[in-house]
Amino acid sequence: MKPASEIERLIQMLSRLPGLGPRSARRAALHLVKKRDTVLLPLADVMRAAGEAIKPCRTCHNLDTSDPCHVCSDSSRDLGLVCVVEQVGDLWALERGGAYRGTYHVLGGVLSALDGVRPEDLAVDSLLARARDGQVREVILALNATVDGQTTAHYLADLLHGAGIAVTRLAHGVPVGGELDYLDDGTLAAAMAARRVL
Amino acid sequence: MKPASEIERLIQMLSRLPGLGPRSARRAALHLVKKRDTVLLPLADVMRAAGEAIKPCRTCHNLDTSDPCHVCSDSSRDLGLVCVVEQVGDLWALERGGAYRGTYHVLGGVLSALDGVRPEDLAVDSLLARARDGQVREVILALNATVDGQTTAHYLADLLHGAGIAVTRLAHGVPVGGELDYLDDGTLAAAMAARRVL
Repeated sequence: MKPASEIERLIQMLSRLPGLGPRSARRAALHLVKKRDTVLLPLADVMRAAGEAIKPCRTCHNLDTSDPCHVCSDSSRDLGLVCVVEQVGDLWALERGGAYRGTYHVLGGVLSALDGVRPEDLAVDSLLARARDGQVREVILALNATVDGQTTAHYLADLLHGAGIAVTRLAHGVPVGGELDYLDDGTLAAAMAARRVL
Repeated sequence: MKPASEIERLIQMLSRLPGLGPRSARRAALHLVKKRDTVLLPLADVMRAAGEAIKPCRTCHNLDTSDPCHVCSDSSRDLGLVCVVEQVGDLWALERGGAYRGTYHVLGGVLSALDGVRPEDLAVDSLLARARDGQVREVILALNATVDGQTTAHYLADLLHGAGIAVTRLAHGVPVGGELDYLDDGTLAAAMAARRVL
């Protein structure tokens, strides 16, 4: 015998969320059904509201409740800077950091021969169109430092060099707070090659 | 700048669920907004459906989508057995085990002088009423092996002894798969005292 079907379905769906397994989904579901009026129903409402409001930004492909998104429509931002990221989560991460006040372009992934991801599967054309519109003066390729991420960065850099704008990438080096002893050889070599005068 | 307000609210509410912190709530929210039609909206619907269907069982105080709950209305169960548990989660745990085919009684907590929980705050009266209805022949006190749990068990046992029914508690001992070296002294002493002939 198992808990009632609606609860069972709730547990099952919660357990598919990243970071929740069957056990933690059960705990979350129990918390929800015990706090029906203060947690479960409000959360359901927020989910529905978010689900209905969310749309991709036509300019940068960010997911937001408005189109253009709150980044693209923020007049205090430098529209001459476009930071290219793989996913919306990367955009969120950079926004949390607060060190960047330009716009973004969410590629939607990286090129991958293995997974069969080709340039036409990503938001490459719209990036080139933005790069050529005269307003953009620098494209920052903030892709992950993985093989596919760097391959994609080089591919985009080749395409963008014709547009007469600056193309940059994030610096590689020792993470702030990082200990040399725990870093991989590639990071150490990159940090050494890009050393700066103190 | 933060993600859009609906997404922000979603993250905030998700992060209050047990087992999810701010970081994992963000990952879950990102997963949800990226899979709007396959995950976010269906989950919102399931939550609403569960929230609207869930009610406490008038007999055993289990939370279920029907009253009487699926346990109390299951005719294949032994209605002469009542297993008293603290919370609905304990009932779920026993049901998962599958070793018990009687009914339950969810107390809703344990007596606690520290937290000011008195007998009238728990489902004690309804338990006594069930114990006296003539159908019940054994009450199993499956409360947690904590100080408050055991205090409550003794309190209930005293009340129930007048009803002329058997009052039992779960056995204490070595957990299946447990190693003696890692067990606390109390468990070892209990297991030794309750040793059985092989």
